[in-house]
Amino acid sequence: MRTTVLLVCLCASLALNAQTLFGWGDTDTRYPLDTPPTGLTTRTLRLTAWRGETVSAQAALHSADALGALRIEAEVEKMDGAHVEAAWVGYVMTDEFGQGCGYRPDPSAYDSSLVADALDPTPVKHVGGNATQPIWLRIDVAAHTRAGRYRGALRIEGNAFAAALPFEIEVVNRTLPPPTAWPMHLDLWQNPYAVARLCGVPLWSDAHFNAMRPAMERLAAAGQKVITTSIMDRPWAGQTYDPFASMVTRTRHIDGSWSYGYAVFDRWVAWMDSLGIRGQINCYTVVPWALTFDYFDERTARVAHVTAEPGSAAYRDYWLPFLRDFARHLRQRGWMERTHIALDERAHNQMREAFAVVKEADPAFKISGAAHYYADIEPMMDDLCLAYGEHVPDSVLARRRAQGRLTTFYTCCTEARPNLFTFSPPAESALVVWHALAANYDGYLRWAYISWPPNPQHDSRFTAWPAGDTYLFYPSGSSIRLERLIEAMQDAEKVRLLRTEFAHKPQRLRALEAAIAQCDVAGIAAQSAAALVGRIRSELHRLSRR
Amino acid sequence: MRTTVLLVCLCASLALNAQTLFGWGDTDTRYPLDTPPTGLTTRTLRLTAWRGETVSAQAALHSADALGALRIEAEVEKMDGAHVEAAWVGYVMTDEFGQGCGYRPDPSAYDSSLVADALDPTPVKHVGGNATQPIWLRIDVAAHTRAGRYRGALRIEGNAFAAALPFEIEVVNRTLPPPTAWPMHLDLWQNPYAVARLCGVPLWSDAHFNAMRPAMERLAAAGQKVITTSIMDRPWAGQTYDPFASMVTRTRHIDGSWSYGYAVFDRWVAWMDSLGIRGQINCYTVVPWALTFDYFDERTARVAHVTAEPGSAAYRDYWLPFLRDFARHLRQRGWMERTHIALDERAHNQMREAFAVVKEADPAFKISGAAHYYADIEPMMDDLCLAYGEHVPDSVLARRRAQGRLTTFYTCCTEARPNLFTFSPPAESALVVWHALAANYDGYLRWAYISWPPNPQHDSRFTAWPAGDTYLFYPSGSSIRLERLIEAMQDAEKVRLLRTEFAHKPQRLRALEAAIAQCDVAGIAAQSAAALVGRIRSELHRLSRR
Repeated sequence: MRTTVLLVCLCASLALNAQTLFGWGDTDTRYPLDTPPTGLTTRTLRLTAWRGETVSAQAALHSADALGALRIEAEVEKMDGAHVEAAWVGYVMTDEFGQGCGYRPDPSAYDSSLVADALDPTPVKHVGGNATQPIWLRIDVAAHTRAGRYRGALRIEGNAFAAALPFEIEVVNRTLPPPTAWPMHLDLWQNPYAVARLCGVPLWSDAHFNAMRPAMERLAAAGQKVITTSIMDRPWAGQTYDPFASMVTRTRHIDGSWSYGYAVFDRWVAWMDSLGIRGQINCYTVVPWALTFDYFDERTARVAHVTAEPGSAAYRDYWLPFLRDFARHLRQRGWMERTHIALDERAHNQMREAFAVVKEADPAFKISGAAHYYADIEPMMDDLCLAYGEHVPDSVLARRRAQGRLTTFYTCCTEARPNLFTFSPPAESALVVWHALAANYDGYLRWAYISWPPNPQHDSRFTAWPAGDTYLFYPSGSSIRLERLIEAMQDAEKVRLLRTEFAHKPQRLRALEAAIAQCDVAGIAAQSAAALVGRIRSELHRLSRR
Repeated sequence: MRTTVLLVCLCASLALNAQTLFGWGDTDTRYPLDTPPTGLTTRTLRLTAWRGETVSAQAALHSADALGALRIEAEVEKMDGAHVEAAWVGYVMTDEFGQGCGYRPDPSAYDSSLVADALDPTPVKHVGGNATQPIWLRIDVAAHTRAGRYRGALRIEGNAFAAALPFEIEVVNRTLPPPTAWPMHLDLWQNPYAVARLCGVPLWSDAHFNAMRPAMERLAAAGQKVITTSIMDRPWAGQTYDPFASMVTRTRHIDGSWSYGYAVFDRWVAWMDSLGIRGQINCYTVVPWALTFDYFDERTARVAHVTAEPGSAAYRDYWLPFLRDFARHLRQRGWMERTHIALDERAHNQMREAFAVVKEADPAFKISGAAHYYADIEPMMDDLCLAYGEHVPDSVLARRRAQGRLTTFYTCCTEARPNLFTFSPPAESALVVWHALAANYDGYLRWAYISWPPNPQHDSRFTAWPAGDTYLFYPSGSSIRLERLIEAMQDAEKVRLLRTEFAHKPQRLRALEAAIAQCDVAGIAAQSAAALVGRIRSELHRLSRR
């Protein structure tokens, strides 16, 4: 609980003066930079939370005059262990969906604009005139908090004035388990290489891990279950601004034997473990986008590449000794059960040939992939991620769940909506989770949590795909998109608990289930994300209070 | 002894028919391709040899008509253990001295011609019309051969005819020690990378060593004392067509520690040892031409480079841990006494700073280099090689010899003569050895024994320097240049033995010493190499028979 008392409020919050607005908005809106926000209120904002839940709210400020250096601060009175954070919402360049996938060599071919997305918890910011400045409020309610109503305030303070917006949180007598316990699968691929580059720190140094900590802690809070690792150079042929290097080293000796180094892999996995991301270790990949495979050649003291198609002798010669040694190493670390050889969007015959080598090396290897549904390949995949809307027989989904195998879905550059671009309506970040529930999936995957473009804080566009496709976390901190995704991940866990609680009183859940069912493909096509998610959350709030 | 009896000679040797010449020539001449050779003789050639010596002779063939497939063969009667070899002398493109050093971007700026240099012992060759075909005869007299006169013949055989040239060897009652025992220092740098490339064999494979064997065995026969090794990538910034890679691997781990691999270095050194090249191990280099140093970076699974000036902290951080580990490894192999950290043509301050790090790592490291004479640097160098004609005080040479330190000289692209270009008179290959004796040096160094250009068998020109500067051995075998160098290396050992034998009868050597003394810089400037070397060899033959 923050106990600092700010300056006494000197004036009404909504209108600091005739030309200044400050009030509560909502979390569905990206407030435009250059028009005064509408629909704000200075009335006490009422929030509902479970113990252990994170709740968010958004306020907005607009002034005709430049306001100079402003400090924001938020507090909740008498709530032990709460983490309360007020963050400036920063504007970032975005573009538009266009044709979705493909390269964008000419940025001027797309409408570009500034959108509110990046959260920056730095307390002080210079706020200019004739511009909107949204503020994001986040309250992490501790798991041991007593049920009850708590009062709080979001405050801004400048040289000449201060203002505050009041809020109230009702903590209900229900406890949200920690993210590690949520069965809803979430897989946002991490790219440590981008963080090292942007922060100017040596890869895998202590400074690098420190630089990654905020992003990866927030990812753990979102319920992430998967550690992204690369077991070869450039699994995606370097499609990201910072390509993935190999986290294992392989040396081919002059006598033709191989040796392998796992120092980077081990440190990265162990560190992610320490943050609570203790689920799968996904290893990219035996079937990369470009079929060239790297190794350090002792003969030349140089990195060499072999090009080999799955099914060829050269492919087997490269992979089989590695996978056997890797399995030995993983067993030694106690990680074999968690390790998935992973791939995405590869051809049917390549997958079949590659999986044969994986299983020959060690049948205990699991296999994970974002792939089309192939009836003969699907049974080999312990974690199968399908494109949004792809049809899979219900019987297959049911069998896979009975076998303890995951079936999830993903969105990427293909889907105009629901998606998590910087121009996407914020509620779509929540909607993907509701779609997973509505369509009977075990979770959601997105290919890029933090594959930053050159200047991610200011420009979310990239040389390919709609802007924001490549990341959800900023150098300054989280994003509206990520916070809304976390909201839905929490809410999905609530649904799971309520379904258990009311297993014998299904009528109590009827309205909730009806709202969730609307999040199928047809519902999403027909309705706004805000409406779909809003309906579910209203029901959840109603049920939570019972 | 070869016992095969060839076809009976059907016609006179000198004139197979009116338009064909076949006779003994001399080893000082590169017979022009397109004019009939002059001065040939069919009389019995008289050779003199010590036991254990290799002697050479040259014959030439010229015919107006194409002669078709010809077989050459040579034999010596009743000489046990002799190796007798007849080789076709091949023509290779050369250029001219021009300005000597520097790049030659425009080959047409230099006169080019075909010169006889490459020896090819393949028995059968198609010999065309209106062209000269020289033949090189080599007889390796075994060390156990009884003194006496031996008769032999050099034979050619075609479809329609055969011819033979008679010769006689007088083996004198003196024994030449094996090349390993010769104190005359010889250092022709080896480039294994060129052989692997041209022969299309994997580096450091058994096939690679097999491909190198003829060249390195002949090098051992020449009295080579030094194994050329590279302990970093591109010690000469890749000046040769096939750059030197590092023969040691170095890995920088994510915790900042280093590890090193010596598999290539060890195999190369041990193999050269097995050929009898058991002197110095020269390691290039702590002061390369470009101050960038390679290592395998575990963080990125990539080779990285650090740029560091000797004297800087980065330089010391790179070299000190390596040199310490290297010394440990060399001691384990029993090689520490033989190992020289080597360099060439580097700046004074760079050498001083670098040597400090070498000696800090282990004072037992020796230092070797082709360098200018600096009074303060010279005492640090166990093997100092000076440019031809560079003045060093006699007292320094005497002190160095008393300390057991080598002082040698080198020629490269700077010297029009004496030198070993493909257009150089063959006797200059011998003359460099006589200059070493005349000028009180311990030996001779040349920077490139086998740094082949793209097509060394047919074109000895390179993108820099006068043609032939980069190699002395051909894919087909030895060269006139190398055989004349071997001749002088043998003769220099004879001089050493005769000086001992006649230590108390110096008047017997007066004419020999006078002839050798002519090979100082002034003598070389004034007289032809053939005359200078011929005079010495006449005296040697005379003295040998006493």
